[in-house]
Amino acid sequence: MLAPMPTIEELATRLDRVESILALHRLSADYCRGADRRDLDLFLSVWTPTAVWAPRENVVYTGTDEIAEAIERQWRSVKRAFHWTSNGAIDVDGDAATARFDVDAELELLDGSWIAVAGEYQDAFVRTKGRWRMSKRLAVIHSQFALARAAH
Amino acid sequence: MLAPMPTIEELATRLDRVESILALHRLSADYCRGADRRDLDLFLSVWTPTAVWAPRENVVYTGTDEIAEAIERQWRSVKRAFHWTSNGAIDVDGDAATARFDVDAELELLDGSWIAVAGEYQDAFVRTKGRWRMSKRLAVIHSQFALARAAH
Amino acid sequence: MLAPMPTIEELATRLDRVESILALHRLSADYCRGADRRDLDLFLSVWTPTAVWAPRENVVYTGTDEIAEAIERQWRSVKRAFHWTSNGAIDVDGDAATARFDVDAELELLDGSWIAVAGEYQDAFVRTKGRWRMSKRLAVIHSQFALARAAH
Repeated sequence: MLAPMPTIEELATRLDRVESILALHRLSADYCRGADRRDLDLFLSVWTPTAVWAPRENVVYTGTDEIAEAIERQWRSVKRAFHWTSNGAIDVDGDAATARFDVDAELELLDGSWIAVAGEYQDAFVRTKGRWRMSKRLAVIHSQFALARAAH
Repeated sequence: MLAPMPTIEELATRLDRVESILALHRLSADYCRGADRRDLDLFLSVWTPTAVWAPRENVVYTGTDEIAEAIERQWRSVKRAFHWTSNGAIDVDGDAATARFDVDAELELLDGSWIAVAGEYQDAFVRTKGRWRMSKRLAVIHSQFALARAAH
Repeated sequence: MLAPMPTIEELATRLDRVESILALHRLSADYCRGADRRDLDLFLSVWTPTAVWAPRENVVYTGTDEIAEAIERQWRSVKRAFHWTSNGAIDVDGDAATARFDVDAELELLDGSWIAVAGEYQDAFVRTKGRWRMSKRLAVIHSQFALARAAH
């Protein structure tokens, strides 16, 4: 039960929305991969020049210079980290978009202990000259859990 | 090696399938987010009026009234829950669809203990008046694991 | 700010790329589901006849016969396994593609102990006669963790 035959203009608009959703999933993936693999270029490629990053409550970085410093500080303070996102919900409105992702994170601290974090990303994106980038990522932490390692 | 140039009708049909797959991923995300954030409106928006929800073996709720009661009971019986889905496999056939998702869930019980659940969703969807909704979600539990919290 | 009106040829090319990305996500999901549900047909359907599978460092299987033997050996050596992928990053170039996926895996060993693995898939795909298949999957393990089970 499709709608009446669309025009090529309508198809182009709908396809643009679909491509945008995939591009925003990719940006979010690049954020995680950049952060976890400690690839600064990849991590910074995600953001607009004036982006806002709030990696935890009451901590806000603005602009890619501050964001670069902040992620490098984070890399020094944690031995390893894994951020697995899911349940992406993306709303595109022309050249702007918002999204939510759930995130299951596991971090190895400098003392070798592990914590599991259940959180959520609250995102905004803009498209400039045809390229989507993240203008805001707010990380909300719902739960933290110190994982016990088995003797094994 | 693309196929011969498609007609606009063919493109519209293919684009409709792609949009449907994205819409069904979104429905599944809204289910998880509604359940975990305890947003009843969002959770109920996912279902058809006569939907069937089987959240565990031998437990079946039919229709949004029963589903609403069941999720509210679940919220009272568990302190917090996180459902992270992945490995979505969606098959669309016109206005009907089926899907499988894997789910990694972590639940904090009322006594503060945590369990990790590895499961799978077996879903059916229908589209009515252009809007996709879930007509069935069967949750299959493959494994349950009581997580030990480190003293930390 | 959409680009100037595309031709039907351009739309077809762009839609083909979008469909390919969804098809490759699906292949990766079928790999995980085939492996974890121990569905040999599903698992083998993912690969090209001459595919290369490197499930861990310095272990390489070539062709579906070797891959079939290897997965069956793996099934005998582990009681249960769950592979949850996320952060998919897929680059399509005509009839070839590469991808990265992060993977959060949990395995129950034969002695009943559990390990959590944080890893990454490095993939290549090819399309033959209109059908995408995996020509290479390299699994890189970033971290292994023996999970303690609570007395509970």
